[in-house]
Amino acid sequence: MPELRKDPILDRWVIMAPERSMRLAGMAAPDPELGLLDGAKDCPFCEGCEPLTPHEITACRAPGTARDAPGWRVRVVPNKFPALSSACIASATERGMYHSLAGVGAHEVVIESPRHVLSTTDLSEPELTDVLWIYRERLLALKREPRLLHAMVFKNVGAAAGATQPHTHSQVLATPIVPPAIRESLASSQAFYDRRHCCPWCELLAEELMAQSRIVLDDEAFMAFCPYASRVPYEVWLVPKQHGSHFETISSTQAWQLASALRRMIGMIEAVSVPPAYNYFIHTAPLQEGPMSHAHWRIEILPRQTQLAGFEWGSGSYINVVLPETAAEKLRDAAFRLH
Amino acid sequence: MPELRKDPILDRWVIMAPERSMRLAGMAAPDPELGLLDGAKDCPFCEGCEPLTPHEITACRAPGTARDAPGWRVRVVPNKFPALSSACIASATERGMYHSLAGVGAHEVVIESPRHVLSTTDLSEPELTDVLWIYRERLLALKREPRLLHAMVFKNVGAAAGATQPHTHSQVLATPIVPPAIRESLASSQAFYDRRHCCPWCELLAEELMAQSRIVLDDEAFMAFCPYASRVPYEVWLVPKQHGSHFETISSTQAWQLASALRRMIGMIEAVSVPPAYNYFIHTAPLQEGPMSHAHWRIEILPRQTQLAGFEWGSGSYINVVLPETAAEKLRDAAFRLH
Repeated sequence: MPELRKDPILDRWVIMAPERSMRLAGMAAPDPELGLLDGAKDCPFCEGCEPLTPHEITACRAPGTARDAPGWRVRVVPNKFPALSSACIASATERGMYHSLAGVGAHEVVIESPRHVLSTTDLSEPELTDVLWIYRERLLALKREPRLLHAMVFKNVGAAAGATQPHTHSQVLATPIVPPAIRESLASSQAFYDRRHCCPWCELLAEELMAQSRIVLDDEAFMAFCPYASRVPYEVWLVPKQHGSHFETISSTQAWQLASALRRMIGMIEAVSVPPAYNYFIHTAPLQEGPMSHAHWRIEILPRQTQLAGFEWGSGSYINVVLPETAAEKLRDAAFRLH
Repeated sequence: MPELRKDPILDRWVIMAPERSMRLAGMAAPDPELGLLDGAKDCPFCEGCEPLTPHEITACRAPGTARDAPGWRVRVVPNKFPALSSACIASATERGMYHSLAGVGAHEVVIESPRHVLSTTDLSEPELTDVLWIYRERLLALKREPRLLHAMVFKNVGAAAGATQPHTHSQVLATPIVPPAIRESLASSQAFYDRRHCCPWCELLAEELMAQSRIVLDDEAFMAFCPYASRVPYEVWLVPKQHGSHFETISSTQAWQLASALRRMIGMIEAVSVPPAYNYFIHTAPLQEGPMSHAHWRIEILPRQTQLAGFEWGSGSYINVVLPETAAEKLRDAAFRLH
């Protein structure tokens, strides 16, 4: 059974999931250059292969089609090798300096298309809207389980970004703790709010609009920019202009607007990162908290062209060899070429 | 000129070093399988190739040999593509939410052998003692520059760990800030000290000795163990039994004892990680601080068999698929086979 361990001295949590080491056994290394037909062979995420996955949790499907059968557009299934599991009994142990929690949680896979396509850009805007809407549905469902304090929605594309299945998919990992990066971000934004009486992200959007140099995309409802202190080349944050702390509060109009912005943004990232390798995740407020004036949900996209090295691991700082202003310019150029 | 940027909201620092993007231009991808002779072709770190590097800062050399000439055992040179530079004038700018510092610092390369060898285990114990002693010399020298608040000594081995030169070497990066990971560790150990009136690391060594299951190496002066909340498979911390906050206070006896322990430890890591890819770094207290009762220097070794993915980037937590107790057992088995 998985377990969460806290470092005896630091505020650092690690999910120990030895069962997940089975995940790679007997699986060919993912090859981002695979042709679609070759790649589709034995793919458990393709329509018609539903028996190869655990039973479906939810799906967008055509009326009259059965659970775990063809006819779906987006399908959510439990991760076959979950990092955390709802089957755990919530318990905490403390022995001397060592503190651990049972690995209570949920680990789900969102299969984004019945077709064997490899990229978000292979989805139409309506298809991507369905994916985003199902993220919302899962967050709302997980919120009803009071032991779950946070859920991270994330996507890994390319072996360099930790992906093991090429068929386009994302994941939801709900945890019995609020992860440190989320807690630290909330503490910083709370301190800013206490000082200035406004949401720091709303203010940042205004500052970025004035500066212009880091903006990649700016439409009615969303803005994307390369953050001032980008950790990696071509890092992009996609931020709603309307304040909201929780992703799951988006409206259907916003989901459609986000699908349009995210699809264009991934197209630009893919144009500058060959073969494509990136992670995105939704930075959203804890499940069990009400609306927060100082927290602002967003999607952070991190292309993975470079490796973290000893300095980054040791210092918690980053060395970035592409200025965000240069990155934004190249991404805007890519957008121009794509149209 | 390089620049340090602080995130407008978070306590996160990024070194912007666009000049370093030149580093990979015209360089073949490093190949960990390279034979020694092939790999040595055009290697700027080999004896006789001294003109290919910037002028040497210091070296262990035979009496009567000249600077930047053959005859050295360990040689320290400025990084050709420095992330930070002493040529910067210290200055800070603040414009609205955006805060940056000039990239004042030092970025040095420690060439660990005149021979084209790829691993710490290719060095004899006396040779590795020279390397560790020169780390100490550089930290003492950098301490004399009051603008430098911290220096990170680190080593990258293998492309997956961010290495670009196969010839065995390490690096020193001195910064005008105390990096966040060091600050957080000091805050945690200070809080522990205030509560329990002893160094948390000294107490942790005692607890690990009692538990035994995570210990990999235990000799007169040093202990190595897989930490309870290991972030990655086969993570190991090599910790001196004698309390000390600053690496640069080690004695010559300790340097010799550390060389012996580190060399054995790297041998075990290489036996379980094929091809070898790992980072190590010295976690040491800030340069300009006096001795600290709550801080304890150590070497952290992080094998790089797995990739960070979206969950880790978003949450600041880790998923580890090898229990530290299992990892320690395998490393001990490897030690047994190596003898």
